[in-house]
Parts: sequence; C-alpha cells; structure tokens
Amino acid sequence: MAVTLNDRHITAFIKGHELEGMQPLVSAAHTKLHDKTGLGNDFLGWVTLPADYDREEFERIQKAAKKIQSDSDILIVIGIGGSYLGARAVIEMLRSPLYNSLKKDTPDIYFAGNNINPTYLNEILSICEGKDISVNVISKSGTTTEPALAFRVFRDLLEQKYGKEGAKGRIYATTDKARGTLKELADKEGYETFVIPDDVGGRFSVLTPVGLLPIAVSGCDIKALMDGAAAAQNAYANDDLSKNDCYRYAAYRNILHAKGKSVEMLVSYDPAFTMMTEWFKQLFGESEGKDQKGIYPSSATFSTDLHSLGQFIQDGSRVMFETVVDIQKAKQDFFVKDDPENLDGLNFLSNQDMSIINRRALEGTVIAHTEGGTPNLILEMPEPNEYELGWLIYFFEKACAVSGYLLGVNPFDQPGVESYKKNMFALLGKPGYESEKEALLKKLQ
Amino acid sequence: MAVTLNDRHITAFIKGHELEGMQPLVSAAHTKLHDKTGLGNDFLGWVTLPADYDREEFERIQKAAKKIQSDSDILIVIGIGGSYLGARAVIEMLRSPLYNSLKKDTPDIYFAGNNINPTYLNEILSICEGKDISVNVISKSGTTTEPALAFRVFRDLLEQKYGKEGAKGRIYATTDKARGTLKELADKEGYETFVIPDDVGGRFSVLTPVGLLPIAVSGCDIKALMDGAAAAQNAYANDDLSKNDCYRYAAYRNILHAKGKSVEMLVSYDPAFTMMTEWFKQLFGESEGKDQKGIYPSSATFSTDLHSLGQFIQDGSRVMFETVVDIQKAKQDFFVKDDPENLDGLNFLSNQDMSIINRRALEGTVIAHTEGGTPNLILEMPEPNEYELGWLIYFFEKACAVSGYLLGVNPFDQPGVESYKKNMFALLGKPGYESEKEALLKKLQ
Repeated sequence: MAVTLNDRHITAFIKGHELEGMQPLVSAAHTKLHDKTGLGNDFLGWVTLPADYDREEFERIQKAAKKIQSDSDILIVIGIGGSYLGARAVIEMLRSPLYNSLKKDTPDIYFAGNNINPTYLNEILSICEGKDISVNVISKSGTTTEPALAFRVFRDLLEQKYGKEGAKGRIYATTDKARGTLKELADKEGYETFVIPDDVGGRFSVLTPVGLLPIAVSGCDIKALMDGAAAAQNAYANDDLSKNDCYRYAAYRNILHAKGKSVEMLVSYDPAFTMMTEWFKQLFGESEGKDQKGIYPSSATFSTDLHSLGQFIQDGSRVMFETVVDIQKAKQDFFVKDDPENLDGLNFLSNQDMSIINRRALEGTVIAHTEGGTPNLILEMPEPNEYELGWLIYFFEKACAVSGYLLGVNPFDQPGVESYKKNMFALLGKPGYESEKEALLKKLQ
Repeated sequence: MAVTLNDRHITAFIKGHELEGMQPLVSAAHTKLHDKTGLGNDFLGWVTLPADYDREEFERIQKAAKKIQSDSDILIVIGIGGSYLGARAVIEMLRSPLYNSLKKDTPDIYFAGNNINPTYLNEILSICEGKDISVNVISKSGTTTEPALAFRVFRDLLEQKYGKEGAKGRIYATTDKARGTLKELADKEGYETFVIPDDVGGRFSVLTPVGLLPIAVSGCDIKALMDGAAAAQNAYANDDLSKNDCYRYAAYRNILHAKGKSVEMLVSYDPAFTMMTEWFKQLFGESEGKDQKGIYPSSATFSTDLHSLGQFIQDGSRVMFETVVDIQKAKQDFFVKDDPENLDGLNFLSNQDMSIINRRALEGTVIAHTEGGTPNLILEMPEPNEYELGWLIYFFEKACAVSGYLLGVNPFDQPGVESYKKNMFALLGKPGYESEKEALLKKLQ
C-alpha cells in the first residue's frame, strides 16, 4: 500500500489554478533533480539509493546486527545530526519510544555523542555498568567534536573491559569509504566498517548504513524498509502534479509560504512518531533554511499537545499550516469497556477500540483547525510498519529536494552550521584561531 | 542566588529608548496584575502562591510521597496538559530525562492519560506487570477524555491486583476541592485527595499539588522548589524595568514581536531541560495564542539541534529570536583526558571539564546567531537545583502574564481548546451532539 496525500481540506485555502501555476516550476525542479544539473548536484545519491544500494554491504549489516543482538545487552550509537536522528526516529516509530523500558529479546539502545553535556554522558556510562556493550560510531570525518569526544570515552571503556582484541569485535565504524580520521583508526585497529556514501548528505542518510545498522539491531526488518522506499522512488518518478503526491505536497507548502505562512507543523497522533518529527525538522530546516529564506519546521504530538499548543494553532497568530501524518492502524489496539457506574460520563466512548477514538480526534481536529484558519494537509500512512515508513521517508526526502528547488536554494548544503563551530573552536583555543579569540572575548564582556 | 537576565547581546536589535517606551505599558500591566483588575483576574492565585500555599496540605504531600516511595516500584501519573507537563519537566530537569533507566532508590514514574494512543497504553501496562504500583490521577473535573479513560483502566488494574481496600491506599486524586466526578469518586472510595486551587489554571499549576506530589516522589526537595519561587515572587514585585529582569524579558519579547519576529525559540544546552521547554511552550502558547495574535513558542536543545535546526537559525528566514537558558553548573562534570595518539585532533579540548566545552559552545553560538540576525536573550540559572528551578518557573509565569497583558489578550483562558473537542465528541456520537455529527461527516467526505 502507498502513503497518500489527502488534500481535500486544503481547498479552503488553495484554488485549482494555483496548482496549475506551479506545474512548470515543479517540472523544472524535477528535471534539475533527475538530470543532476541543479544546485548541490554532488549530493543526489539518495534519489536512486532504494534501488541501487550495495547488497553485499547490506548483508554485512544484517550479520553485524545479529552478532550485536547475540553478544550485547546495550548498543551505544555515537553520532550527531543526520548520524543520530534517523536511526533513533525509525526505532522509536517501529519499536517504541519506550523501547529501552520494554521486555524484549534485542539489546537496549542508547545514543551518545549528540551533545556536550557531561551529566548525560555520565548517566549513559552508569547505565552501562555490568552490561555487555557494543558501539556503533558514525562520523564521516571522525573529527566532529561531539561524537569524537564520546568515542574517545567508549573506546577506552571497551578496551578496559574486553582488552584491545575483544573491543575490536564490538566496535563498528560507519564512516567514509577511504579517508578521514575514523576510517584510518578503524583500519589500523581492525574494526568492521560500513560506508557513508560520498553523494548522500547526513540528513538524507537514514537508509544508508548510518541508519540501517542501529535499526536492524532493534529488530526491525530493514529489507522491508528499503522495499517501501524503492516503491516510493518508483511512484514519484513522474513530474505530473495531478499524479505525484510527493510533488503536490512540495507545491502546496510553497504556495502556503507565498501566502504568508512561515511555520509548518508536522503533527501525528502517536507518541512513537515524535522523533520522526525531529528527523523531519532537520531534513527541511537544514535544506531550506538558508539565504534568509525557508519555512520554519516545527512539530507536535496530538492529542497530548492539543492541550498545550492547540490553543495557538486554533486561534493564535495565523502564521502556520499543519501537515498531519495519519497512521491509520494501531500497532496494538485497546478495547474500551463499559463502566457500569459511568461516573465520568464516558460510556459513549466505550465498546469500541481506542484507535477509533484517536481517529475521531484527528478528524475533529483537522476540521476545527481548518475552520480556525490553519490549513491542513494529511499524509495517510496505512500501517505503522517498515514498508510504509520507508515509503514515507522517501516521500519527505524527495518533497524536500523539490521544495528547496522551488524556493531557489541549494537543498543539499548547510554552510550556516560552521559559524558557531568556528567561534567555539576559537574560544577553546584551537590552534590557528588565536586572532579570532580576542575579538570574541570582547563581545562576551 | 538569582536567575538573571543577560541582555548584552540584544543591544544590536533594541535601543535603550525602546525599553523606556515600554515602561508605562509594563507599569499598567503590573498594576492590572497586582490589583486583580485585568482580563482573567479569577485566575491569579499563582501570583502569591509561593508565599501563601497550604502548609498542612504540603506536609500531606510529603507524607504521601514517602509512602509511595516505600510501597511502590512504579508511580503512574495520569493527567494531560498542565496536569502532565510541569511534573514531568521538573523531574527530568532535576533528576534526569533517563530517570527511569537509572539505578535509584525512588520509584520509576510513567505518565499516562496524556494521549488516546492504544499502543502507548498497552506498553505502559506491560511495564507494570509484576510491579507494585501507585496511581496519582490529576484532573479538575474528572471528565477530560484522555485522563478519564486511562484512570478507568488503572483503577481497574489496581482493584484486580490489590482488592478494593488495597487499591484505595494506592490511589491519590489531585482534583477540585469540592465538586466534580473525580472528587465524588475519591470521597466515595476514600482516596487521599489534594486540591487544584480554583484560581490557578492548569498551565500555572506546577507548584500546586498537581506538580508537587509526583515531583516529591521522584526524590526532589519540593520545599526548596517553593522557596526559590517565593524568592522570585519577592524579586519581581516592583514594576521598574531597570530592576525587574522578569518584566524586562516580557518587554523585550513584545518589542521583538513588534519588529516582525513571530517565533521564539527557548534553547538550552542540557537534554534534561527539554521537557521544561515543552512546559514553556504550553505556558506561553496557550496564554498568548488567541485572537489571532501571539508569538509562536518553539524550542531546541543544543548542541544536538545545532546539527538540525542550527542552519535555519543561523541563516534561514529571519522570523525568530532565541531565549537561551544558561544553566551555569553541571550536575555531574566529566574530565576530558588527553589522548596520546590525538588522531581526531581534539587534544586542544582535553585536560579540562566537559562543562567548559559546553559553555564555549553556548558563548560561540550566541555570538554567531546574533551576528546572523537572530536576537538572543540569555537567562542565567546559577545551578541545576530545586531552588533555582522554582525561581525560573515563577520568572516564566510572571513574564508570561505581563507579556499577555502587553499584547492585549487574556493570558488565563483557552477558549480555542474546546473546538476540536466539540467535533470529536460529535463524531463519537456523544448524546446532545447529533445535529453537528452529520455536518461534520459531510466535511470529511
């Protein structure tokens, strides 16, 4: 089954001819993307990845995952940004946001090296005490501050615990195919390595070994994930807006932006989807947020956040539109029984599955928010499984690329990420940054 | 020590006379708040709560917390919106976002009844298997759908497990002092009850029994929390902008809004603060987001999100400003050792505490974002403890009230939250909603 764009509620805000007006622009963006002649065309490996990925490496990933499942209580995944969000998002969506607390026959998974907070690192270390652990360190260069610092600590821990030889069999490096600090170290020490392709940027890398190894360790079927993405690759290969839901979504969001909507909220009714919204925020925020342009990506999980952000969405500044991911089946349903006393007056809800109530909340909210002036687009995901999620991931990736081209930006670079790093390095006394340091210290006084 | 507003980086965006221009408006808002003559003046109990709270009930909370700690492996907290976010936020901040995974001598705490997702409910139930549990159900009326449904399930579970008499000693109801379904049930069954004051709205209720009981169970010192809030109540009693950091913050955000900034990002460098940003989002979003007005509240946790939203903040649409919570001490520091090989080239970071590196990241980022055109305000919180957090909570509550008055809205109602509920009830066939149902079904076709 396919992820489908339900756009019936958008007609209150966008007329048919507006979509017609976007067709030539979308076609131009489509051509640039598929001819590889647009901005950032060195980073288009993700477009055909679901069909073209390295099968031999894929089998090694599955083998490594089995080994980790058999010899580890905990897998520590070290990475930041695109080397962190995708894996965590998929695991929480397909397994659970409570994955580590649930009884299961796969290892606990903790993410390290995604911040510089010492308390967080100490706590992860305390959780590892007395447990068998493996480490998957994910970094193209091996010199990004956060993961490199964390890897120093966990490499040391594993070598203390298992000896150099034992640690070797428990460290998996996902990195550049030939160059860089981490690749050098891995070759020297004999770690098993997996490749971050040169032509796939971090935020587009969840379907490469970057995401696939941790996801496989959690017990997900990564083959089905790739199959779903491949089906999406196939489904969205044509530039006709009337037939391409992915491009129509890209067109709608740019139309809404041109009408003055500056915030997009990605919304679901499943707490398991919350980290997927974080992945979405990086994908779109980093791809579009440049040259002083872009729709600001935000998120919410309903009905939880209807009791926090709901008031604003219903009746606050009319700056936003919503994209609702409608996951149409529950992983585990729950039958609501009658309460003979009915003190709370909720028996009108009983004798049915709770998922039905959640669905009515979605429907009622879409209508309420639309009538309040917040445009709603709905992405229907038929089931919460690997295949559909792979499809959805590809949907967002391609929509993001086309959307970025419609905005006139390079969707595949992130020059602004360097600014804070340069300042941080200078303040920390990195050799070569001496002159900047003094100027910065003055600004802090 | 006091939470302090560091506004030295805002001078690039706001001149001194602009603050002068705000003084009479702030004074007017202050007067309305303290005279209780402004919009929503039935809900001002939080203003003097830190000094005036019920000491006898406070002792009962501490006693109940001790009992739960002694007889329960797990506390289930049932509530939504303000009856959920405050407690969870404080526990994650002062204990840990990994609280349930850490070794400790206080019960695990899980939050239920904050969504209608059946998978989530099933998972919480599976975690409870074989464990001793207590339940704190928090609802003013007892008829809010999400918590009422969850309470039906957990009440049933406890009565099955411990018998009616045993369950009675493990259920704590935080509710209205006299009226409502939950109060009636609690009186009938003999549950211990705590009071949600009539003049304190949900999003302002974290320092009432709503937040205090779960927070106390987690092992936090709730007396110190109240003391910090009381100190803040005292510190922000004067309307002079030059001396009142809380009001100055309220003035700055309204000035920035008038200059076209439509999004505020609340930022910290501590993953433990992440749920506090969710609490902030409800507080400000629900208070200001009405009458088609309001600054949209968003959030990020750095350095994690510098690798996702950082690009947008640095160089995307110039729609936002940042408020950075600078927690100036780490709960547990981590000494970064030299690596003799220095393959990753990070030895310029070593031989110092990791908290210093995190601090340089904050300083470098504030300068980079400011120079990129995103205004930055900094709230300095000297230590991550109960006293300072109580202070910070009061700071935000009072800043929010004054800010709402400056915007001309009633900061204490939330009429928009009803819209989706009405639709949902109609779609679910609630008696009395028959006529709406048909119209809604047509809109969904």
